[in-house]
Formats: sequence, structure tokens, C-alpha cells
Amino acid sequence: MPQNRQILLDNRPVGEATVDNFKLLTVETPPLQDGQVLVRHHFLSLDPYMRGRMNAGKSYAQPQPLGEVMIGGTAGEVVESKHPKFQPGDKVVGMGGWQEYSVVDAWQPGMLRKVDTSHVPLSYYLGAVGMPGVTAWYGLVKIIAPKAGETVVVSAATGAVGSAFAALAKARDCRVVGIAGGPEKCKYAVDELGFDACIDYREHKDAASLSKALKAACPNGIDGYFENVGGMVLDAVLLRMNAFGRIALCGMIAGYDGQPLPLAHPALILTNRLKLEGFIVSEHMEVWPEALVELGTLVGTAKLRPRETVSQGIASAPEAFIGLLKGQNFGKQLVKLI
Amino acid sequence: MPQNRQILLDNRPVGEATVDNFKLLTVETPPLQDGQVLVRHHFLSLDPYMRGRMNAGKSYAQPQPLGEVMIGGTAGEVVESKHPKFQPGDKVVGMGGWQEYSVVDAWQPGMLRKVDTSHVPLSYYLGAVGMPGVTAWYGLVKIIAPKAGETVVVSAATGAVGSAFAALAKARDCRVVGIAGGPEKCKYAVDELGFDACIDYREHKDAASLSKALKAACPNGIDGYFENVGGMVLDAVLLRMNAFGRIALCGMIAGYDGQPLPLAHPALILTNRLKLEGFIVSEHMEVWPEALVELGTLVGTAKLRPRETVSQGIASAPEAFIGLLKGQNFGKQLVKLI
Repeated sequence: MPQNRQILLDNRPVGEATVDNFKLLTVETPPLQDGQVLVRHHFLSLDPYMRGRMNAGKSYAQPQPLGEVMIGGTAGEVVESKHPKFQPGDKVVGMGGWQEYSVVDAWQPGMLRKVDTSHVPLSYYLGAVGMPGVTAWYGLVKIIAPKAGETVVVSAATGAVGSAFAALAKARDCRVVGIAGGPEKCKYAVDELGFDACIDYREHKDAASLSKALKAACPNGIDGYFENVGGMVLDAVLLRMNAFGRIALCGMIAGYDGQPLPLAHPALILTNRLKLEGFIVSEHMEVWPEALVELGTLVGTAKLRPRETVSQGIASAPEAFIGLLKGQNFGKQLVKLI
Repeated sequence: MPQNRQILLDNRPVGEATVDNFKLLTVETPPLQDGQVLVRHHFLSLDPYMRGRMNAGKSYAQPQPLGEVMIGGTAGEVVESKHPKFQPGDKVVGMGGWQEYSVVDAWQPGMLRKVDTSHVPLSYYLGAVGMPGVTAWYGLVKIIAPKAGETVVVSAATGAVGSAFAALAKARDCRVVGIAGGPEKCKYAVDELGFDACIDYREHKDAASLSKALKAACPNGIDGYFENVGGMVLDAVLLRMNAFGRIALCGMIAGYDGQPLPLAHPALILTNRLKLEGFIVSEHMEVWPEALVELGTLVGTAKLRPRETVSQGIASAPEAFIGLLKGQNFGKQLVKLI
């Protein structure tokens, strides 16, 4: 059996996460039992939610156990199978974790999904045509539910979720405004991703200043907001929301390190009759088929051209992940494992 | 024509509202034009939303103009009519404002509504079977939408909204927990209003302490919350909300005086996948008929027995209103004008 290099969570972050929270280990892949499949991972997906799992306190999910392989989405190829529905060579997507191989009990529903790579590159199933894409779809379609002509805003605009959000919102004839970190990302958002405008939050010291920039970029106010960040950005957006606006809360990465992250003016929710809703896309599996069809079509027609930042080799995963948390990636952050 | 005593807004509050913000004026009621009705007010309703209108900044409504009669709901009797649908002696409910008489253009839809006082006392149309009752109904039925057996919580529990909320929630087989100010109100909530438990927020110095009391009163967590108050109370409730909980934001009286009122842990909205929604009942006129039927039935069957605090005479309105803002009333605050 092949050697399998794994990244375990070794200890929990105190404040910021660092590469020292992780440990690399090499093990033998075990022989397969009946119903099991051995998958060689080609790509590992790195996503902000993983930071939340590194903390000890229960969030919406149990914390990542210490001394175990970090959880994570993977795309790869079946190399050996004791399950009738999977054959060597099949391209598959699953939650294989931060490692080069995984052994999957394929009878358990939802553990492993075969994908077609004839029109969509394998890695896209971890981004635009995967969990991040469906996340954008759910927040936009099911929570914000915009009408044509409305203005919608997304933070972390050039990430995997933000770029899918832009394409989905443009398809619904919305004005789409992004918030991102740095002039390069903002230029990319407008030139390549189809945003009507993009604001560099790093140019703003406080919510009042950012809010002023939002006013200029959103002359008709904001009808829908997709939140990946929290903190000052959310405060600034709230000041510009129109009556009956909708806010989909998907991430609050600004608070993952444990610092207090209050909302300055919650009374605006009342005075503007806003709706805020937190959600986790894995709890809405019923929408995945519909969402994936639309996302696949947008990719196929080049209306969604996701960018990827790819680091090489499993040993690079911790550093790439820390970079993601600091916004150093450009588009979907992946680790290439072959 | 009769003399009409009015209360005008004379100047805007700086911090807390005081009786000196108001001015009493006596005028003649003008002769009626075609289509107009002269109403003698028997009761004036005092409600927390009026405090918001006293500020200069636009909230959900335009601010109350200076030098004009304070807005407010009124119940009274037609004394003269130049409109075919209204006759002297008709009991009517409208938005007559803080004054003894009003002249109403009765052709305008929604200005004046005839009510039947054979089974429901006239004053109740300003409380349990009026705007506050429908407010409770909308938040409970349309936003919280509880299942039988769920736990719902309401702040300002013994007020006009809170008492209606309790009766409506008990009719849906919920566990209903109130939050109120002082042991007397808490005892009344449990003994008379049907609350399963009621917590005196004045016994708690901070959100953590109040949250602990909520844990004891809500052993299965909180599924729905109706917010009238904001501030520490909202922080405490958020800490006890169950996954997929719903929060109806109706009032944030704690912030009316302009002090900052941040929300300490907005990330809980995400981790618990909560839904928050601000609303104003006057924007949902389509539910009033259905809500009023249920509220009238609850009153008629003595399942909702609203308590009233009644001050006497229009000149007493400012002081009664300041008392309401401080929670000195017990149940629905009214001013009797005859």
C-alpha cells in the first residue's frame, strides 16, 4: 500500500493560527475492507471555515479533534476499489482531509461523489462548482433573493465564494459591488469578475469612512449583502442598507482569532426592517443539484472564470492556509498533491 | 365648536425625554368641510415608538415635526359628521394624536375605523385588540412561527405587546418566558398573564448573569425571541438561542436616548444559523383582520386579560409618557380624556 502523508491538528491557536498548530505525519494506507475505496487526492481545498474548527469551543460544528487529520474537501481519483459503483480511474470529490490518500466507506451516502471532468476541470469541483459556489448561490438566491436592478454587495469579493456570487448576481441583472483587500484584487474584481465596482477596505480606517465609499459605489443604497468577514465591514454596510434589505451571514472571519467583534448599531436592523440570516450550506443539500447546474453553466459559458491560487504538496498546506486567513490568496486556495 | 386642548412637541430631547419637550395649547375645533368627521377622543394610546419620533434623525418614519400635535392612536366617539358612513355616537379608532378632538377626512382610507364595543371595551382597541396586539401577533406568527413545544421569550413582558404575545404563544402550546422589570411585574406575568416563568432583569448586572437566569428558565434553550428592548437583554438572549432560532425585532427602547447600543456577539447569528427580522406592524395591514379576530377571541374567552394604566386628562400625557419610557406603567398605558 502507498505511503500517505497527513497534516494533523497538533495544538489549538492562542489568538492567531500559525503553522506550528499543525504536524506532518507519514503513515501506510491500510488494506481495503469490503465496500471501501482508496482515493488518491489531486487537490485539497483550503477554506476559512477550517479556522473556526481549530478552536476548542463548539461553534456550529464540533471542533476539529487534536491529533487527527484536519478536515477538508478533496478532489481526486480512485486507485483501488472494493465497492461495485467505483472503479480505478473514476474522478471523485469528497471530504478526504489534509492528506494524500483517503480510504472511504463508499456505502455511506454523501461520502464520495463521481464527477465529470470532460468540461469542468477537476479542481473547480472544490470551488466554483463545489461548496463555495453553492454557498454563494444559497445566500444570493434563498436569502437575499434579489430583484433585477437591485444592488447587492459581497465581502471577500475575489475569493471562491465572492467570485461565484458576482456571476450569479449579474445573471439576475443586479448591480454588484465587492469589498476586497488591496488595489490589485479590486481591479481584478471589476476587470475579470464582472463587479460593477469594488472597494478596497484597507484604504479605510473605520466604518464611517468605508460607509462613505459604499455610498458612492451604491448610489441607490444596498438591498442585499453577503457577509464573509464581519467587524468593521458589516458595520459600514449596515449604515447603507435600504429598507427591507436582506443580509446573508456566511462567515465572520474577522472574529476567528477570538477578539471581540461587536456590531455597532443593531438598531438599524429594526429601523430599516432588515432580515439577517446565518446559514451553513451543508445543511441545505436539497439545493445543491439546482445550484450546481447553474454554476456549471456559468463556468461552461465563461461567465464565471474562477481564479485559483495553488500551493504545491501536502507539506505546504499549513502555510497556504495561514496565507488564506490573511487574504494573501487570489481566488480559490488549493493545494496540489500530485 | 368645542375647545380642543392639544399637546405639541415643543423641542427635541437631548438624551432622555422630559415633560419640558412638550407644550399644551388650547384651540377651537374648526367647522367641518364636506367628508369630514369630528371625533371626541375618549382614550389616547401612549406607546414606546413615539420616543423614536421625537428625535430629529430619520428612523423608519419621518420625525415628529416641532410645533405640531404629537402623533398617537386614539379611540373615541363621532360627535359631528359630514360623511355618509359616520354618524354621531359611532365609536371609532384612528390616529387622532395627543388632543381631545380631531377633525378627520373620512374619505381617506384607513383614517377612521368603526368598532363594536358591545363585547370589547373601547380602550382595548388601542391595546390587546389594536396595534400592540397585532404587533405581538405578527412577530410571533409571521417571524417566529413557533412549533408546539418550542420555547419563546419576550421582553417588556407585561406591556401591551408582551401580554398579548403570551396569550398567543400559549394558544400555540409553547413554553413562554418573560423578561420584565421588578418582582411585582414578574409575579403578575406568571399569575395573571399565563407566562411559564418571568425573569426580573433588574436583578442582573450584566448579560452573563441574565443569560444564566435564562438558562434556568429555558432548560431546552430559546427557539423564538420577541425583542422590545435591545442592549443587555438582547445580548443575554442571544447566548441562549437554539440553532435555527428566530428573533423578531420590534423595539429597542434601550437605545432611544441616543446612547450607543452595540450587540456584543453578532457571530452567534452565524454559528447558530439564526434569523433576525425587524418589522413595523403598520406595514403589514394585510394581517390585521386575521390577527384581530384571534385577539378578540382571546379577550372574549378571558384568555387574554389586558391590564391598563390610565392617567386622567390630556395635560397628564407627557408625564405618563415619560413614566412609560421608564417602565413605570403596568400593562397598556392610556390617557383618559373624558
